[in-house]
Amino acid sequence: MLAHLKQQVFEANLDLPKYGLVTFTWGNVSGIDRKNNLIVIKPSGVSYDTMTVNDMVVVDLVTGKVVEGNKKPSSDTPTHLELYRQFPTIGGIVHTHSRHATAWAQAGMDLNALGTTHADYFYGAIPCTRKMTEQEINGEYELETGKVIVETFQNRNIEAKDIPAVLVHSHGPFAWGTDPHNAVHNAVVLEEIACMNLFTHQLNSNINSMQQVLLDKHYLRKHGKNAYYGQ
Amino acid sequence: MLAHLKQQVFEANLDLPKYGLVTFTWGNVSGIDRKNNLIVIKPSGVSYDTMTVNDMVVVDLVTGKVVEGNKKPSSDTPTHLELYRQFPTIGGIVHTHSRHATAWAQAGMDLNALGTTHADYFYGAIPCTRKMTEQEINGEYELETGKVIVETFQNRNIEAKDIPAVLVHSHGPFAWGTDPHNAVHNAVVLEEIACMNLFTHQLNSNINSMQQVLLDKHYLRKHGKNAYYGQ
Amino acid sequence: MLAHLKQQVFEANLDLPKYGLVTFTWGNVSGIDRKNNLIVIKPSGVSYDTMTVNDMVVVDLVTGKVVEGNKKPSSDTPTHLELYRQFPTIGGIVHTHSRHATAWAQAGMDLNALGTTHADYFYGAIPCTRKMTEQEINGEYELETGKVIVETFQNRNIEAKDIPAVLVHSHGPFAWGTDPHNAVHNAVVLEEIACMNLFTHQLNSNINSMQQVLLDKHYLRKHGKNAYYGQ
Amino acid sequence: MLAHLKQQVFEANLDLPKYGLVTFTWGNVSGIDRKNNLIVIKPSGVSYDTMTVNDMVVVDLVTGKVVEGNKKPSSDTPTHLELYRQFPTIGGIVHTHSRHATAWAQAGMDLNALGTTHADYFYGAIPCTRKMTEQEINGEYELETGKVIVETFQNRNIEAKDIPAVLVHSHGPFAWGTDPHNAVHNAVVLEEIACMNLFTHQLNSNINSMQQVLLDKHYLRKHGKNAYYGQ
Repeated sequence: MLAHLKQQVFEANLDLPKYGLVTFTWGNVSGIDRKNNLIVIKPSGVSYDTMTVNDMVVVDLVTGKVVEGNKKPSSDTPTHLELYRQFPTIGGIVHTHSRHATAWAQAGMDLNALGTTHADYFYGAIPCTRKMTEQEINGEYELETGKVIVETFQNRNIEAKDIPAVLVHSHGPFAWGTDPHNAVHNAVVLEEIACMNLFTHQLNSNINSMQQVLLDKHYLRKHGKNAYYGQ
Repeated sequence: MLAHLKQQVFEANLDLPKYGLVTFTWGNVSGIDRKNNLIVIKPSGVSYDTMTVNDMVVVDLVTGKVVEGNKKPSSDTPTHLELYRQFPTIGGIVHTHSRHATAWAQAGMDLNALGTTHADYFYGAIPCTRKMTEQEINGEYELETGKVIVETFQNRNIEAKDIPAVLVHSHGPFAWGTDPHNAVHNAVVLEEIACMNLFTHQLNSNINSMQQVLLDKHYLRKHGKNAYYGQ
Repeated sequence: MLAHLKQQVFEANLDLPKYGLVTFTWGNVSGIDRKNNLIVIKPSGVSYDTMTVNDMVVVDLVTGKVVEGNKKPSSDTPTHLELYRQFPTIGGIVHTHSRHATAWAQAGMDLNALGTTHADYFYGAIPCTRKMTEQEINGEYELETGKVIVETFQNRNIEAKDIPAVLVHSHGPFAWGTDPHNAVHNAVVLEEIACMNLFTHQLNSNINSMQQVLLDKHYLRKHGKNAYYGQ
Repeated sequence: MLAHLKQQVFEANLDLPKYGLVTFTWGNVSGIDRKNNLIVIKPSGVSYDTMTVNDMVVVDLVTGKVVEGNKKPSSDTPTHLELYRQFPTIGGIVHTHSRHATAWAQAGMDLNALGTTHADYFYGAIPCTRKMTEQEINGEYELETGKVIVETFQNRNIEAKDIPAVLVHSHGPFAWGTDPHNAVHNAVVLEEIACMNLFTHQLNSNINSMQQVLLDKHYLRKHGKNAYYGQ
């Protein structure tokens, strides 16, 4: 069942330690089969060293029930499901506690676009969510985490495909993409930007966002019908 | 004698360079056999490259005397012994001079809980001890180091199992856990948090601790009778 | 055609990930054959893992047209070409988004000469360009990027051979040298200096440039007719 | 001739890239044979990748002339010679441009003793020299560099064996020890302390030196007749 997607999700999960995005089991990647409304996700708390493709868990998009798999899915599964339901253009999601992105999430600060590295991938600031309420935290916490992400994008009129990442306040980053591999790619970029922007902030804590025209140029050089980067 | 515990302690010591927590011989791990009141600890000043399981030293919990082993135990042994005596729930202890945690210890500052990475492992701020007195330093220094750690936890009403680490002022971190392996795990987490919090401090030096309700949620998601993280 | 130069450019490109200067495909190296007015450059968006020497693209210095190669050249090719045309002493160019140099570019700040590491390679501050205008960005952007670099060197009366690197505002570094290998060498030094200077700035944000006499001494110890460093 | 010392110096030089203290050829280690008043030192500008033990150069302590070797000695040789002449207790010297120590040298700031990591090796602040004068720089520069180091230790009443390192203003660190291996060991410690102290400075830029009594305790725990650390 979903052998190809399972393999993709498994490999994308193994990329997290490869790219230095996780310590121990602090991360998870999922992917979705939009035709069947099923997602594949990492099992909860399983080490990357011993994990096999057969440990991947299949979960129903609508009911949130496990459809296949011997292990419990990641405890963050309800967050992934909510993002897949509300962001219909995305095909993979990754959550990590990568160092620099988490530092910004802990500071409760957006990652403003300060340079073309950012502009090549994200069409504007990567938002940090508001703090969650006591009701949300004590309720269906992981589902509510997804809802506060969606709310953030709606309130700011951002399309998920244009800015494929978010910082969850006092927590850490989520990134997404067209498939699990692309989601991890964006998570790597996010961490790199978070690091560069931290250094830039140390040099000038009053730095403003880059020029909009330069942001447009670089983003549209790589995305949309007039893109001309790559082969 | 204590072959299994010696192996555990040996492997846990080798994990220190593996996780980048030590330079040269600047660290040590111990474990305890609670039934026999004996601890096993790294020998003093021996390189991780050449150390074997037979170099581990067995020390009596009460008398502090070496019971077995050809080498002198770590000079920090009296600190370990005091912690084992006063914190009856712990099974392993690790001491390092890991970079970021030591920076906070040198600054004499607590590591406040700023995010869920912290909350997943530590149920509140990781305290920094007060400066030791001249009498303590010139007396049984390593024993007194243990006593000032215990005093810190008593004065703040902290249970050792709830916050399995401490920063010793002008010195560096100690971490502990249910066994030597778990103690090293907590030392890795401590160093990671110390790094993230340093970055967060650079972004906003007035940052407050995270919401108590979010700290509760994450800690209790992983600990206690209602835990639901992992398999 | 240009087999030797292709091999040089190919190897110099592979040095970018080796020295930790690039994430994914965020960098490119070129070299020039001055006799034939041809440059060899990395193809656009091709992974360093799979790239072969046959993927290198040959481009005409004057017309900017591809002369040989199955792939599209780097999208930054017009920047390289402009630098080769205006800086006749240089034989290789490298562009990266290396972390620390990019942080300074994002802050829009020059890298002042603060120590002898800098003085051994760069005869004065490494300049950061002005922001580009809307007309430049929406025009022939990559060509204009080259022109603003050249303008910066002209306005400040800097010779390209004396300071073989530049920071492009809100973008990142370009470095050059006598050949592709030497250009990468200078890019590594630039990143190292950017890192050291960031740390120095953290210790003292009002730090001034080093003494001119010490800058002279170290630069001329390694460059020019009185050089005495090396064999 | 001096086969054992050459091997020691060769291996100690190779330890520089192993411990991450050098980029390219930016470092050198020497050792001395006190009986014969000869030193062995790395050749100038030779890559660590291709260097062999036979490239080591033998230099006369008094005359500064090359006694054996096909290559030119390190351009820093006169600095090494002056230190060996004025600091009769030292047996090995290392010079690097290691990142964090160089950042402090560029800032012109001493490395104050902030914790026990420092106190285990250095009996007080690691001094930064004054700026050199125009006469010194334009004179016998490398010799004068050695003289300004010696002056710094004399003016502050520091014994070279008690604080086996220095920061040369606007340049970088020198460290020394009982032999070449021990000198590199101290250079590694210096870089680690420089890193930790940078982080501590970021947390609290007004931090004072540690208590003298704790400095005494840790230094004397490892040095002198009452030392009890190690086997």
